[in-house]
Amino acid sequence: MKILPIGFIETPFNDSVGMPIQPSGAELVKGRIIVDEAYEQGLTDVEGFSHLILLYYFHRSKGYDLMVKPFLDDQQRGLFSTRAPRRPNPIGISIVRLLSRSGRILTIQGIDVVSGTPLIDIKPYVPKFDIKDVTASGWLEKNQNKVASKTSDSRFVEK
Amino acid sequence: MKILPIGFIETPFNDSVGMPIQPSGAELVKGRIIVDEAYEQGLTDVEGFSHLILLYYFHRSKGYDLMVKPFLDDQQRGLFSTRAPRRPNPIGISIVRLLSRSGRILTIQGIDVVSGTPLIDIKPYVPKFDIKDVTASGWLEKNQNKVASKTSDSRFVEK
Repeated sequence: MKILPIGFIETPFNDSVGMPIQPSGAELVKGRIIVDEAYEQGLTDVEGFSHLILLYYFHRSKGYDLMVKPFLDDQQRGLFSTRAPRRPNPIGISIVRLLSRSGRILTIQGIDVVSGTPLIDIKPYVPKFDIKDVTASGWLEKNQNKVASKTSDSRFVEK
Repeated sequence: MKILPIGFIETPFNDSVGMPIQPSGAELVKGRIIVDEAYEQGLTDVEGFSHLILLYYFHRSKGYDLMVKPFLDDQQRGLFSTRAPRRPNPIGISIVRLLSRSGRILTIQGIDVVSGTPLIDIKPYVPKFDIKDVTASGWLEKNQNKVASKTSDSRFVEK
C-alpha cells in the first residue's frame, strides 16, 4: 500500500529535539499547511471547521521497537499504548485549530511537528465522531498533565 | 512511502452498503482487532485505555474526486471537509471503545468498517491531546445529528 504526500506542514521547529511533544504542549504555536496545487479544490469548505485532523508522515523516524520508554514515563510501555513516532507505519495524527485559509495555504495553531513534515490527509474534526467519554487513560492517567511542560529529546529520531 | 498492514479489523459488516457511516452511528456494534503475531508485544499496556484510535486502509476504495456529495448533505463539498473514504491517501480513522484484550486480539465497540479492513496503526486516545473545544463544524453543523440513523450507500465503493 503506497501513500503520497499531498503537501507539507511548516512550523517554527527545525529539529524535533526541544519541540513540544504533543499539540496540547504547543497550543499557541502557529504553523501553516501548504497543500499541493493538484489538491486545492478539495480544500473547499474546510474553512467552516474550527479544528482539523491532520495525518502526516514521521519522515525523520526510522525503524521501531515494540517496547518504548515514552517521554512522559520512566517505564517501558507497549508501542501501541504510546504516541511515539517510531512505529511500523510511521503515521502521526494531530488535531489543530484552523485560523484561516487562503487558497491552498491553511494557517493553523497547536502544531507540534518538525517543519517540512509531509502531509498525508486532512479531515474535519467532528465532535459527534471524535469526542469520546473516556473512563481510563492507562499509564498516561497520572502523566498527561506533564505534557505542557515537557519537550522532546532525541530518543525517537533518526535511529 | 510504503505502509504495511499490522493486522485486520473484524466486524459484522461484510459489505459497506448498509453499514453505519461513522462509529457514532455504530456505537453498540462490536468487532475485533486481530493484530499480527509479529506486533503482539507492542499491545502491552493498551488494556489500560478505554478508547483507542485506529488507523486503517480503505481497501475497497478506488480513486477519488476533489468534490463529493457526502452522505449527510445534498451539496457537493470539498473532499478534505468530509470523511469520505475515497481520498488521495485512503486512510481512515475511528475512535473505538476497548472492551478487552486477549493476547493479540482486542474486542472493541463502536466500529464502522467493512470486515477484513487492513489495520495500519493503533494509538491511545488521550483527552489532553484529542478532545478539543470546537466552535464550528462547517457544513456538518446542522447535519451531524443525522449520523445515528443514516447508513451508507454504494457511492464511495469500488468505483
